[in-house]
Amino acid sequence: MLIVGGTGGTGSWFASYFKDHGFLVSVWGPSGRVEVAERLGVRFASDLMGEVSESDIVLLSVPIKETARVVEKIAPWMKPGSLLMDVTSLKSEPMRAMLRWAPEGVEILGTHPMFGPTIPHIRGQTVILVPAEGRCDAWLSPMEEIFRKDGARVEVLGAEEHDHIMAVVQALTHFAYISIGSALESLDFDVAHSRRFMSPVYEIMIDFVGRILAQSPELYASIQENPEAKRVREVYIEECKRLAMLADAGDLAGFQEAMKSAADHFQGTEEALARSDKLISLWIDNREGGRRG
Amino acid sequence: MLIVGGTGGTGSWFASYFKDHGFLVSVWGPSGRVEVAERLGVRFASDLMGEVSESDIVLLSVPIKETARVVEKIAPWMKPGSLLMDVTSLKSEPMRAMLRWAPEGVEILGTHPMFGPTIPHIRGQTVILVPAEGRCDAWLSPMEEIFRKDGARVEVLGAEEHDHIMAVVQALTHFAYISIGSALESLDFDVAHSRRFMSPVYEIMIDFVGRILAQSPELYASIQENPEAKRVREVYIEECKRLAMLADAGDLAGFQEAMKSAADHFQGTEEALARSDKLISLWIDNREGGRRG
Repeated sequence: MLIVGGTGGTGSWFASYFKDHGFLVSVWGPSGRVEVAERLGVRFASDLMGEVSESDIVLLSVPIKETARVVEKIAPWMKPGSLLMDVTSLKSEPMRAMLRWAPEGVEILGTHPMFGPTIPHIRGQTVILVPAEGRCDAWLSPMEEIFRKDGARVEVLGAEEHDHIMAVVQALTHFAYISIGSALESLDFDVAHSRRFMSPVYEIMIDFVGRILAQSPELYASIQENPEAKRVREVYIEECKRLAMLADAGDLAGFQEAMKSAADHFQGTEEALARSDKLISLWIDNREGGRRG
Repeated sequence: MLIVGGTGGTGSWFASYFKDHGFLVSVWGPSGRVEVAERLGVRFASDLMGEVSESDIVLLSVPIKETARVVEKIAPWMKPGSLLMDVTSLKSEPMRAMLRWAPEGVEILGTHPMFGPTIPHIRGQTVILVPAEGRCDAWLSPMEEIFRKDGARVEVLGAEEHDHIMAVVQALTHFAYISIGSALESLDFDVAHSRRFMSPVYEIMIDFVGRILAQSPELYASIQENPEAKRVREVYIEECKRLAMLADAGDLAGFQEAMKSAADHFQGTEEALARSDKLISLWIDNREGGRRG
């Protein structure tokens, strides 16, 4: 297995992962960081195109905006019966590129690991697989099996549906959190001081804001490029404005009505309350346990 | 100790809490729900004004918008040396009302418990105390002591500073989450289905949206009445619009720049990442442990 971009964070993670599962892994990265390969205990693919034409699996772990260009360069040289995978957060565009440039006998499996390289284990994490229709018969099952055996949740989806769901699950989630980070800056709000006055809901939210701001701005910016994210952001801002207008006008009844209506649509709010109570308890037990220790 | 509004969720919680700490508690509620008092094992104060004039502590647990009216009715009848407390989420206005209506010899302690009545224990929770200047000498220490002994974090603040911090810690946090709930409704997004494709960040966020929507719309609406919340909402919406404009225009460099700038202001993003990694691990262990069991 060749991992293109295997010297980066996500690429390295997958290099270790597949090596631990018995694959003969080699990595290539544009920076030529041979020391990363050495640290991972895998081979650095000095002859990139030679390796492409000999590998059973080529896994692309490159930024979304470079994916199409890398696919165009690499996919045509893959051998029949081999598998081309990517691990980007959007699927429509990478799938189009892979379908366009991979020769007919090459199988194509779009992949979206819903986690970053800081996770300790894949157990309980979600992996979304987007097999190319009629072009992923041999490789889909074994790949599913590997992730499932390790306790990951594997979901198989079409590329369009994937991007539709991710426009909310990732793009809106991140957008709301990043906007909070920007608002804290604009308000010149003292985040460190505010920690003394935290409710657990704020504590966890503010850590998620920090979590996202700590990670690759390139990745988070590219997730906002989701073809449906623009509309989702627009709707979100409209709802913010509508709720703000109700609150500004002191129309508490209208604000409450909007909350009730959102709760009706959401469904399962009681289960969400129970789950978040449980989460908050776990969090407090962990924090206070650590303090006593 | 008399708890006015002691038959409601928060009032009942404090009735049990102080009863367990050896106080002789009686409760009164406008609905006259004597059965709540019976369930709690405390007395129902049928003669409200008689009890007011005899109690060492009167604790008000009524909706914010009714606080001033209730204070006006009750505070003038309290006896010298007694303590008047409220447990509302805003402090400037209730403090003004208590200072205006309580006789001189009555001590005043604004209180903001940063938790709801669903918590199993006060350990690790935050309680903010706002003592009236020069009018809370006898009661502040014993009250602090009770909460601290149980492992709560007690913070002492001025009323204005309290409301300033809460405009972000509570009002902005809730506002962003409620707006997400409204956006999900407006997009007709299938929340239950989306759970199959969750990252832990989304999973926890969506449970917090559900958590807030499950609770009292009256409470959440009144928190938006914070005197500084209007400006905070405005700034938040401005930042949402600015980031959306960058993303809409495909200005990924500008979007990344905004993220970096917010990260610089935030500080401690790496610690936030580490803490949220830990939280996510705890959450996954709990979920997957439960599944195996």
